[in-house]
Amino acid sequence: MERSLLEVAQALDGTVEGDPRIRIARVASLESAGAGDLAFFFDVKKSGALASTHAAALVCGPSAPATALPTIRVKNAKLALAKALTMFEEARPARGIHPTASVDATATIADGVEIGPNAVVEARARIGARTSIRGGAYLGESVVVGDDCLLYPGVIVLDRCEIGSRVVVNAGTVIGSDGFGFVAGETQHRKMPQLARVRIGDDVEIGANCTIDRGPLEDTLIEPGVKIDNLVHVGHNGRIGAKTLIAAQVGLSGSVSLGERVLVGGQAGFSDHTSVGSDSIVGSRAAVMKSFPACSKLGGTPARALRDSLKERAAARGLVAERDALRRLTKRVEELERRLRER
Amino acid sequence: MERSLLEVAQALDGTVEGDPRIRIARVASLESAGAGDLAFFFDVKKSGALASTHAAALVCGPSAPATALPTIRVKNAKLALAKALTMFEEARPARGIHPTASVDATATIADGVEIGPNAVVEARARIGARTSIRGGAYLGESVVVGDDCLLYPGVIVLDRCEIGSRVVVNAGTVIGSDGFGFVAGETQHRKMPQLARVRIGDDVEIGANCTIDRGPLEDTLIEPGVKIDNLVHVGHNGRIGAKTLIAAQVGLSGSVSLGERVLVGGQAGFSDHTSVGSDSIVGSRAAVMKSFPACSKLGGTPARALRDSLKERAAARGLVAERDALRRLTKRVEELERRLRER
Amino acid sequence: MERSLLEVAQALDGTVEGDPRIRIARVASLESAGAGDLAFFFDVKKSGALASTHAAALVCGPSAPATALPTIRVKNAKLALAKALTMFEEARPARGIHPTASVDATATIADGVEIGPNAVVEARARIGARTSIRGGAYLGESVVVGDDCLLYPGVIVLDRCEIGSRVVVNAGTVIGSDGFGFVAGETQHRKMPQLARVRIGDDVEIGANCTIDRGPLEDTLIEPGVKIDNLVHVGHNGRIGAKTLIAAQVGLSGSVSLGERVLVGGQAGFSDHTSVGSDSIVGSRAAVMKSFPACSKLGGTPARALRDSLKERAAARGLVAERDALRRLTKRVEELERRLRER
Repeated sequence: MERSLLEVAQALDGTVEGDPRIRIARVASLESAGAGDLAFFFDVKKSGALASTHAAALVCGPSAPATALPTIRVKNAKLALAKALTMFEEARPARGIHPTASVDATATIADGVEIGPNAVVEARARIGARTSIRGGAYLGESVVVGDDCLLYPGVIVLDRCEIGSRVVVNAGTVIGSDGFGFVAGETQHRKMPQLARVRIGDDVEIGANCTIDRGPLEDTLIEPGVKIDNLVHVGHNGRIGAKTLIAAQVGLSGSVSLGERVLVGGQAGFSDHTSVGSDSIVGSRAAVMKSFPACSKLGGTPARALRDSLKERAAARGLVAERDALRRLTKRVEELERRLRER
Repeated sequence: MERSLLEVAQALDGTVEGDPRIRIARVASLESAGAGDLAFFFDVKKSGALASTHAAALVCGPSAPATALPTIRVKNAKLALAKALTMFEEARPARGIHPTASVDATATIADGVEIGPNAVVEARARIGARTSIRGGAYLGESVVVGDDCLLYPGVIVLDRCEIGSRVVVNAGTVIGSDGFGFVAGETQHRKMPQLARVRIGDDVEIGANCTIDRGPLEDTLIEPGVKIDNLVHVGHNGRIGAKTLIAAQVGLSGSVSLGERVLVGGQAGFSDHTSVGSDSIVGSRAAVMKSFPACSKLGGTPARALRDSLKERAAARGLVAERDALRRLTKRVEELERRLRER
Repeated sequence: MERSLLEVAQALDGTVEGDPRIRIARVASLESAGAGDLAFFFDVKKSGALASTHAAALVCGPSAPATALPTIRVKNAKLALAKALTMFEEARPARGIHPTASVDATATIADGVEIGPNAVVEARARIGARTSIRGGAYLGESVVVGDDCLLYPGVIVLDRCEIGSRVVVNAGTVIGSDGFGFVAGETQHRKMPQLARVRIGDDVEIGANCTIDRGPLEDTLIEPGVKIDNLVHVGHNGRIGAKTLIAAQVGLSGSVSLGERVLVGGQAGFSDHTSVGSDSIVGSRAAVMKSFPACSKLGGTPARALRDSLKERAAARGLVAERDALRRLTKRVEELERRLRER
């Protein structure tokens, strides 16, 4: 559906420079844009692409250079791109329940729900309005999913877990797998039954092929607004505070607690029972082996203040020179000793 | 189903302090327990919760403080919890073969087997008595699964792999994927066909979204009693000794061999063809790049004796101070040299 | 199907030493081989197995010792094994479309395609000749898959992604999951819609339980001949050059670019927007935090020239001794100072 540049500018909270009547049909990259396309400029490294783009119009932040093209000037070009992509995204027609889906007769399905081909909904599960359970996904017994959620193909939510509203779970992710709990017995490890739930708040997004474990007695909690990237492991009894962001391949052992608005970089790891307070930053690949208070900035293995970690890294890089300096100094001391002896 | 405190104590090998006749209906955490609930105390940090719990009775280890509540005193409170959770867990009624499951006519299915909705069992597969293959799981051709196993939804066992009895495989795990084997050809990498099997012993438990590869000729072996956490990668021709425990996100390259009763911490990695002997401990995040004998304690990147690794870490932490000390000492030597010259 | 040793030798580009007429029925390991079996010798550590093997015949490289057994002498024994395994692999009969598969009426299915039990093919998907989509796999709307591909059980290819010909995707892998893109809004993180595709070239192989993300506007590209091991994460807008090999559990953040023929070791990680040039080697566990040119050899955290990384490691290992040396030297300087003062 086409819109005028003025209409788009109003939706993006921007102002038009140039002809506000030109028609916009879609969003494209600077390089691939053509007639009817709106392109976004937010990377100075792409100034070359800016000069040669065939876009019909541009969206730029406050400090971007002026060009000959009609332009929407906005405060935050990334935020504007998110809005524009949503505006031009093709609406997906509601599909209802596919005939090959296996939906237990005791499940409760609200209005406007989509359940894709070969998806499974077990006994007493409850699915909220307009939620989409895509092909091959699996909801266990008594699972609860709120309104307006999107569970991609192959997502598995195991018995009794609960998911809030407006939650997105990417393909292949498992919610409610058994926590890794074994007790040393006399002849073999005895399994600790994992009977509690995973509970996920509103507006959470979880990436693909993640695993979120349940614990023996207390629920694993993902609070509202948390965003988790792909292949992340959350151990049993974990608690992740609201709006925390976790990058790909991070591992949280059992009973790890993160505060609110924490940023965790890729491949970081947390030992069991550690906690990191709200508004902290945990650098990628950091190994958190003890607890840290709010507003910590952490890095390294084991994780410590990022400042110290960077200093140590710099010192380590100077280590080869240092060793040579120590050897040279030792020679000079030997010479001094010899001379003092000789007097 | 309710039981008297005495009955429970007998099952947990404990002794009752207080009224043995009170009725127990379920197990709960100290914080959430109410009337009829049995709570467990094994963490001194939870002494506050102990004072304010509404549990009907407690289970405590030998050194826990006495309280006013009826108490079962046991040697090992964690082991007692595992037993109690099993005792009060609701029995899951046998469900048989779901009409939407696709079970090949040539498959052999023993008595009491459950096959969930949209699960797939291919030609000549054999499933032992009372084993549960949950919804959406997949067993390839000629796969063998023993008795009393639980394969969670979405588990994939590929052609000809073999699984023992009492094995639990969590959701989304892949058993028998092709090993990563390519031979440099003239113009491109040529695939080494991976035709051997993965064979898994009795009493093994494997976490969610793991990958266990098959090799070209020799079987990948997971021996009895091994426990593996989530997102673990076991490369082709791997061999994991009995009762070894592997934490989440560990990666074993091809042809890695671990002894019996090895403990491997989270996110550790093993280079191909390395081995670590029985009763060893490999710390989390350790990178094992050569082989180590039995009873090794390893840490660091590359992995070495944990003792040395910790010393080096301490030394590294002192590095900044060390560098300053070297500079100060150099100044003092210069001063000495100057003074000797002046005489 | 049996073949004469001569026939096999011709197929392997080798020469026969001994009786060329003996019959070969299959390929086996040195240890397990019996009558009719062809065994391969390429590991000097297996000389013991060579002496005691019951194989009917051997395949050896140029430098292997002569034995009493009929032998095919080849230039490259690993390459010969790959060819021999392919030669003796049982052909899998074409299976067609399983009645439980859900194939949308608008999908285009070429000749010789297999679609397994409970697999899903959504609207307007196109599948090329002789491609096999195994049980429980999922192809989204308008997905394109070329000829002669093998998508193992549980593979998920999301809407509009494109896969070339002769591509193998192992079980549980997700192609086209949403990139991890959020924009800081006033009260919460706003999702950046991820609307572009993942495009995968010919002759690519991808391991099990990997995740390959799509980006907002520009396609994620995996070029021809790339081989990727298990549990690898490729972020949105990534670009992986032709014939690059990536080992297990590697993580590529968003917009990472790798050149052609790059080798990436297990558990390595790449920060977003970094690039590594063609013919480079990135060591296992390396953390690439800035860009490097072609032909780089990298290791360490953060990644730097492998040579420097190894030197630093050696220096770090000497650190404890160094610290002691510095303390001893300080004592000697103190003694010198005392003596000079006393004069």
